[in-house]
Amino acid sequence: MQRKSFEDMQCPIARSLERVGEWWSILILRDAFAGLTRFDQFQKKLGIAPNILTRRLATLVEAGMLERRSYSEHPPRDEYVLTARGRDFHDVLLALLAFGNRHFAPEGERFRVVDSVTGAPADPVLVDRISGRPLSGPDFKLAASAAGQFTAAKQAAAATPRPKHKESRS
Amino acid sequence: MQRKSFEDMQCPIARSLERVGEWWSILILRDAFAGLTRFDQFQKKLGIAPNILTRRLATLVEAGMLERRSYSEHPPRDEYVLTARGRDFHDVLLALLAFGNRHFAPEGERFRVVDSVTGAPADPVLVDRISGRPLSGPDFKLAASAAGQFTAAKQAAAATPRPKHKESRS
Repeated sequence: MQRKSFEDMQCPIARSLERVGEWWSILILRDAFAGLTRFDQFQKKLGIAPNILTRRLATLVEAGMLERRSYSEHPPRDEYVLTARGRDFHDVLLALLAFGNRHFAPEGERFRVVDSVTGAPADPVLVDRISGRPLSGPDFKLAASAAGQFTAAKQAAAATPRPKHKESRS
Repeated sequence: MQRKSFEDMQCPIARSLERVGEWWSILILRDAFAGLTRFDQFQKKLGIAPNILTRRLATLVEAGMLERRSYSEHPPRDEYVLTARGRDFHDVLLALLAFGNRHFAPEGERFRVVDSVTGAPADPVLVDRISGRPLSGPDFKLAASAAGQFTAAKQAAAATPRPKHKESRS
């Protein structure tokens, strides 16, 4: 993409955007979650030029979000399937969906997340998994470190299972 | 942006992307959350060409994400401040941050969300506000409707306060 500073490249938001921060890439991932796998399906659904779709799919494969698999030998045909990393993008997509529903759906919601059993609509919010508190509030803040400062803590956390509840941290 | 189908335009993800689904726009919002307000600040931080920054800021103002305010008469100078809609984008940014930390931070996390008081790292997850259950799991699914089908339910929900707990829904 465009020129960017080294400082930006250390930012996980910038790094995510470098891989998937493009209108078409995110819509391709959306449609992959909806079950689309084949070039023709994506092209028809998105109304995208073939050369652009080819480039976007290659970028997503390179970023480890999609895996390219052969599904036919004669003629040779590939399909594109979400990897574990690609599936892990689901929260970002649902956060975008919720934001769009709140702000850009004046005629009513066209898509929403619902309870699989009851059909009741969900109200998506990003929280801390351990404490359940919303992250977009005064309880939390964004912290920066010198590059790598968090590495030791991260490795220690990986080696030692984290306490499930806050009380166990004295 | 590029050509897109009418079907996509009914999708809240596509609609959000149309407004902010561009590498620079999302980084501008990120830096606005970090407290930047002035043209020069954004330009220096992002290393972005002035004409592109001007266009991106105008798009974000037009989308109602940023508000343009005068902070000096002589010389005339404007600043760009997050609106309520812009601030509501925070969950999307934090979801991107968490995704980037999980997948594109091999040398350790450079930025993370931490508890404002204790400094303990948060583990961001998107859940249903009412029940607290993760949305990226079997409990929930994405549902589509004919355009506007959800409008009545949405209005009814707005008129009647929703129950706080699932138990109250029998």
